[in-house]
Amino acid sequence: MRMYDIIEKKRDGNELSYEEISFFINGYCRNEIPDYQAAALLMAIFLRGMNERETAQLTEAMANSGDKVDLSPISGIKVDKHSTGGVGDKTTLILAPIVAACGVPVAKMSGRGLGHTGGTIDKLESIPGFRTGLTRDEFIGNVKEIGLAIAGQTGNLVPADKKLYALRDVTATVNNISLIASSIMSKKIASGADAIVLDVKTGSGAFMKTLEDSIALAEAMVKIGSSLGKKTVAVITDMDVPLGNAVGNSLEVMEAIDTLKGIGPEDLQTVSFALAAKMLKLAGMGSEQYCSDRIREVISNGSALKKFTEMIERQGGDPRVVNDHSLFDRACFSYEFISPQDGFIQSIQTDQLGVAAMVLGTGRETKDSGIDFSAGIVLSKKTGCRVAKGDLLATLYTNREEKIKEAVRILHHSFKFVETAPQSRPLILAYIDKDTINLS
Amino acid sequence: MRMYDIIEKKRDGNELSYEEISFFINGYCRNEIPDYQAAALLMAIFLRGMNERETAQLTEAMANSGDKVDLSPISGIKVDKHSTGGVGDKTTLILAPIVAACGVPVAKMSGRGLGHTGGTIDKLESIPGFRTGLTRDEFIGNVKEIGLAIAGQTGNLVPADKKLYALRDVTATVNNISLIASSIMSKKIASGADAIVLDVKTGSGAFMKTLEDSIALAEAMVKIGSSLGKKTVAVITDMDVPLGNAVGNSLEVMEAIDTLKGIGPEDLQTVSFALAAKMLKLAGMGSEQYCSDRIREVISNGSALKKFTEMIERQGGDPRVVNDHSLFDRACFSYEFISPQDGFIQSIQTDQLGVAAMVLGTGRETKDSGIDFSAGIVLSKKTGCRVAKGDLLATLYTNREEKIKEAVRILHHSFKFVETAPQSRPLILAYIDKDTINLS
Repeated sequence: MRMYDIIEKKRDGNELSYEEISFFINGYCRNEIPDYQAAALLMAIFLRGMNERETAQLTEAMANSGDKVDLSPISGIKVDKHSTGGVGDKTTLILAPIVAACGVPVAKMSGRGLGHTGGTIDKLESIPGFRTGLTRDEFIGNVKEIGLAIAGQTGNLVPADKKLYALRDVTATVNNISLIASSIMSKKIASGADAIVLDVKTGSGAFMKTLEDSIALAEAMVKIGSSLGKKTVAVITDMDVPLGNAVGNSLEVMEAIDTLKGIGPEDLQTVSFALAAKMLKLAGMGSEQYCSDRIREVISNGSALKKFTEMIERQGGDPRVVNDHSLFDRACFSYEFISPQDGFIQSIQTDQLGVAAMVLGTGRETKDSGIDFSAGIVLSKKTGCRVAKGDLLATLYTNREEKIKEAVRILHHSFKFVETAPQSRPLILAYIDKDTINLS
Repeated sequence: MRMYDIIEKKRDGNELSYEEISFFINGYCRNEIPDYQAAALLMAIFLRGMNERETAQLTEAMANSGDKVDLSPISGIKVDKHSTGGVGDKTTLILAPIVAACGVPVAKMSGRGLGHTGGTIDKLESIPGFRTGLTRDEFIGNVKEIGLAIAGQTGNLVPADKKLYALRDVTATVNNISLIASSIMSKKIASGADAIVLDVKTGSGAFMKTLEDSIALAEAMVKIGSSLGKKTVAVITDMDVPLGNAVGNSLEVMEAIDTLKGIGPEDLQTVSFALAAKMLKLAGMGSEQYCSDRIREVISNGSALKKFTEMIERQGGDPRVVNDHSLFDRACFSYEFISPQDGFIQSIQTDQLGVAAMVLGTGRETKDSGIDFSAGIVLSKKTGCRVAKGDLLATLYTNREEKIKEAVRILHHSFKFVETAPQSRPLILAYIDKDTINLS
């Protein structure tokens, strides 16, 4: 088999076989296939497309390119959840303890922040003492004992994706549904879950800006999951506005704790509970209604919060943070961003709000730079709210006073106002599973 | 300007500006743009195409990437000729002395053999003593004094083409009309001619196998030439059968000498004279009829042969070869390939015949290996001929007796026989110039 022939075949719009796809992925990972041939093939795939079978087999070959997590020591159906990334998206911190409190084990590997979207691992590390770098035995052990662990990726998971993503990033071949879907799903497959709930964000703060693109990506991922024998459900959720009010690591953890106490923002609760219900249903707990009832129960009886507290303790964190927010690092500086006019908030350019938070210190400027856990933004008003000139719109927190001016400038451009109440948009825009797309 | 944006623009089917094309070519030549980005762009160009303006500007940017030959010291209109390559194609050896004998200066830079097609420089070097490596001053001086010089390329002509061709060759992006046409024409433009005659071969021995593709390539090249201010004419000629009877370096020189004496094969004479007539016409010599008459005159009065002899002498070769073929190296072994059956020759798989000749020693196995000047094949029968079982079809010459078996095996597969006379195909299939394609 020759890489040249594989490029030529895809260039001419023909389907690649599993053997050809594997030859490419394996050869590329072993540095036997040079970047320039991989780049030519990626552009051919971008322009000619891949069908469902090819996309699933690409995912499989990528998932097989490195280590795979073995969750078999944990009994029961293990359900993973993945978000395509948003601003203020802290649902994992809420739904993982909920699902565990309902008796379904959660062995969750999460990532760090990327660009303007935050990462669960960074958020958890804002809890004093919390360790996300668990050994494989600690990770499995914790799940077996308390039903819950959230840790950073260990081992060499899907090296093919790391190498391919870096190449796509410099050859204008990122935005292709097959390539995006296989990149995400290969990591889920390698992470060892039996079933997968996908939170596909849509809107100005999301990777996919339009509902149409988000549905296409969701469908592609559900097809891959089904094809590879993993029950997969996608929920399309709104990211035209930040989820909840808090953006920034410790600020988001506090908001997640509030939500576990039943006193969090309504939008955050709605999305978190919906995703948790899908996870419980995939785990075989019962009907959608039954799962929703159980979720409300573990919130109202405090067992979800208790599970979260147990996990903090297990992973070396200070469990007292759940009742004493002052134990988190506090930012030295705060700034009140007030409304420049009367009216309604028509929209918030959410990716820009994420950028403003990054400027304040929530994210990394380079891959290796540190994070200011206490930095961030807490919104007092969101899209659709009526505001008067001088009303508090948001509070900014940072340890770098000199950055406030730039963040405020970005926020000014992010808020759009109108005179009459804008139409509201649902939080959950669609559910996608094998039935909605008529898969056998 | 960023290479990423240029790739993205072409990927999305948009036109590239001259600045963008030049940025790519110059950056790639200076190794500032990596191979993988160039490969992604080449595949995007392959699949999205380039329009006439882009193709002409790509050619221009490539022509400007290195040294350019200055033919201005030579007075008059300098007409270059290029063949897309074929088997037994020795027309340059015939038309160059003819054109020079008619009084039009010929300053011709030629190439070496590539794959199954021979190269003029290799052929000339089969003449004992002949030097093709002239200095710039020798080259210009010879043309000024005797009106004729044929030499190998000197200087760093079109380095962009060398680098791009090597990349296209391994990324399945060779067969695109814009890329092929710009590759050929950039070298012609850099070679300094005022006008260009293109011999576009078509058929089983040619790079372009179908008439349709050959016409498309010819039209693209004529458009480039016209766009860059060079009068350009293309002649589509048959390469479904070798041109003339001889294939191999010294064998082809002998046949060219015969043709200059007026006793060469008719097909070779027809094509060579047609191309020479186009060159003379572009040089402003007069009507097509007048040019044809002049050609017959310089053949019959011996002045074309005399011009060839003068060139051999000037370039260090033994001029006595024109009257004494025994002065060429002779092959140690010969083999008579006879017809296995009665009937008519329906077709000869001409590229395979070229491969058989290579096996005997006519070409290079690797870029740096030597050539056996005396090796080759002389056909006694060609497509359309009636043959009886046992008739001589071809004589094979080589210094490597052990290779004869393999060459014969290839020849056996190359000849197809039928019972009734096959339809003959014209030697000259089309003329393409700016009028035939309605260029202003």
